[in-house]
Amino acid sequence: MAKYCFGVDLGGTTVKLGLFDPEGNVLEKWEIPTRKEESGSKILPDIAKAILDKAAEKDIAKEDVVGVGIGVPGPVDGKGIVHRAVNLGWDVLNINETLGGLLGMPVRAGNDANVAALGEMWCGGGKGYTNMVLATLGTGVGGGIIINGEMVTGATGAGGEIGHIHIQDDEPDTCGCGNHGCLEQYASATGVVRLAERKLASSTQDSVLRAAKENGRLSAKAVFDAVKAGDALACEIAEQFGDYLGKGFAMIAGVVNPEVFVLGGGVSKAGEILCEYVSKYYQKYVFRGSSDAQFKLATLGNDAGIYGAAKLVIG
Amino acid sequence: MAKYCFGVDLGGTTVKLGLFDPEGNVLEKWEIPTRKEESGSKILPDIAKAILDKAAEKDIAKEDVVGVGIGVPGPVDGKGIVHRAVNLGWDVLNINETLGGLLGMPVRAGNDANVAALGEMWCGGGKGYTNMVLATLGTGVGGGIIINGEMVTGATGAGGEIGHIHIQDDEPDTCGCGNHGCLEQYASATGVVRLAERKLASSTQDSVLRAAKENGRLSAKAVFDAVKAGDALACEIAEQFGDYLGKGFAMIAGVVNPEVFVLGGGVSKAGEILCEYVSKYYQKYVFRGSSDAQFKLATLGNDAGIYGAAKLVIG
Repeated sequence: MAKYCFGVDLGGTTVKLGLFDPEGNVLEKWEIPTRKEESGSKILPDIAKAILDKAAEKDIAKEDVVGVGIGVPGPVDGKGIVHRAVNLGWDVLNINETLGGLLGMPVRAGNDANVAALGEMWCGGGKGYTNMVLATLGTGVGGGIIINGEMVTGATGAGGEIGHIHIQDDEPDTCGCGNHGCLEQYASATGVVRLAERKLASSTQDSVLRAAKENGRLSAKAVFDAVKAGDALACEIAEQFGDYLGKGFAMIAGVVNPEVFVLGGGVSKAGEILCEYVSKYYQKYVFRGSSDAQFKLATLGNDAGIYGAAKLVIG
Repeated sequence: MAKYCFGVDLGGTTVKLGLFDPEGNVLEKWEIPTRKEESGSKILPDIAKAILDKAAEKDIAKEDVVGVGIGVPGPVDGKGIVHRAVNLGWDVLNINETLGGLLGMPVRAGNDANVAALGEMWCGGGKGYTNMVLATLGTGVGGGIIINGEMVTGATGAGGEIGHIHIQDDEPDTCGCGNHGCLEQYASATGVVRLAERKLASSTQDSVLRAAKENGRLSAKAVFDAVKAGDALACEIAEQFGDYLGKGFAMIAGVVNPEVFVLGGGVSKAGEILCEYVSKYYQKYVFRGSSDAQFKLATLGNDAGIYGAAKLVIG
């Protein structure tokens, strides 16, 4: 029986790699730079070399490797074909075949957000569940949906693109996607700052956030730190945040009825208090059949991608 | 190889049954009444007798039957356990085991709306697709989600309960579920009437719908008939309907990114025009990664349930 697998998280500046055993223990982690020149043509050869070098270093034979999983920042279909990974300079590329050919090992690719969800289910905040939604609250909002232990890729690899669910009808600002009123405009780190700036502008109430804004330090972290310190205005912002994200989660529950929502990304560093705000508004909007869902924090941080990629090939 | 399977659609007043071959051809269809007395304890024995009698009549041996699929009006988990099918008088009941024991054949149960979606995918409006959403626009709005050819049951059997997705923040009327602003309040047959009544009350514009209302004949059918006849007010109502349902579908696409949305139920009898209104607003709200989705009409009508139930056991 094969004893090892590799998990690869391909990012825009760095490739994270991990060597795992089939139980989810990471035996080694390392990184290489993502060389995007020449339309990203060096990326897969670089990854192949990194893996083959590591296997040689550890004296691991190919037949002892279950395979190599890889998360890619772009839509990836069920056959491992990535469609327009703009950040990497790629157009249409079959990762499973191309990287598999370079390695002589089985390769399975998935979208990075979906793969991170798989990682959190395997060894992180969603451990023990098989129906879960990961919401990654960072600069934007990403997501990954797991149903019966499998990633929901969707028809064109856009499954789990929860950041662009329409949540507000009268939003004047334009989202990065070109629409108006996407979940990402309120529940991302920049979204929380948007809510905070609007609240500060529409109120004369005293708040530690006013000084933060003047000093250019208004951030999602500043908002939730102020919430924990009992700042009343910050608490109102957190209520708005909870309303938007809780409503979004309730909509998602009306589609896939998950057991658990896992919160990751920079905003989730605010901790358990985030789950409290979200859960409160989730219960306001959700259909009663889905009211039992749990809310957990992601635990793998930046390693979710390599864990999920390894899980892709372990199955 | 087994040559037959049975599909059962258990409704509140009637049980529909079908005998199928494994290719999806219905060899015989019939019905029996749903006897709900004594907490619904006669229902499964009645169904078992109907199937065994039919098998005897047709000289079909048990070993020639792949199994019996059944759609049930309530949440059914992955093990075939129904939880509180209020309409039938059932509390918690393991259908797979109970009906399987009575029949001596493999039984697989699912929620009726999810099962209908499976039927439309197998032999109806979703034929040729493996990632689809069925929206049943009747008195209420039901739904079924199919991912990679499999029903999305969800953690508690509430997968695909799209009728209760929150879609409007300031709805004064209460939905049957107790919430406010559910998709069902606008996209069901009664929802279309609600939109029509509000439009008639807020406008003085002439419309054939005014006479319909006075004669107690204001219905979803009357609205879409008026649309086809070029009634301007009716067209405005259809735009509103399309906006709500298109927005709801765009949200669903942000979760599961289906290839196709299939419209069933009484409202869908309005025909292709429905797809046009919904598609227009879907494109307004959807994330571009999901903009290729198709819109089709359901074709199996009331038989979707028996087809899907048969497909449940054919796999």
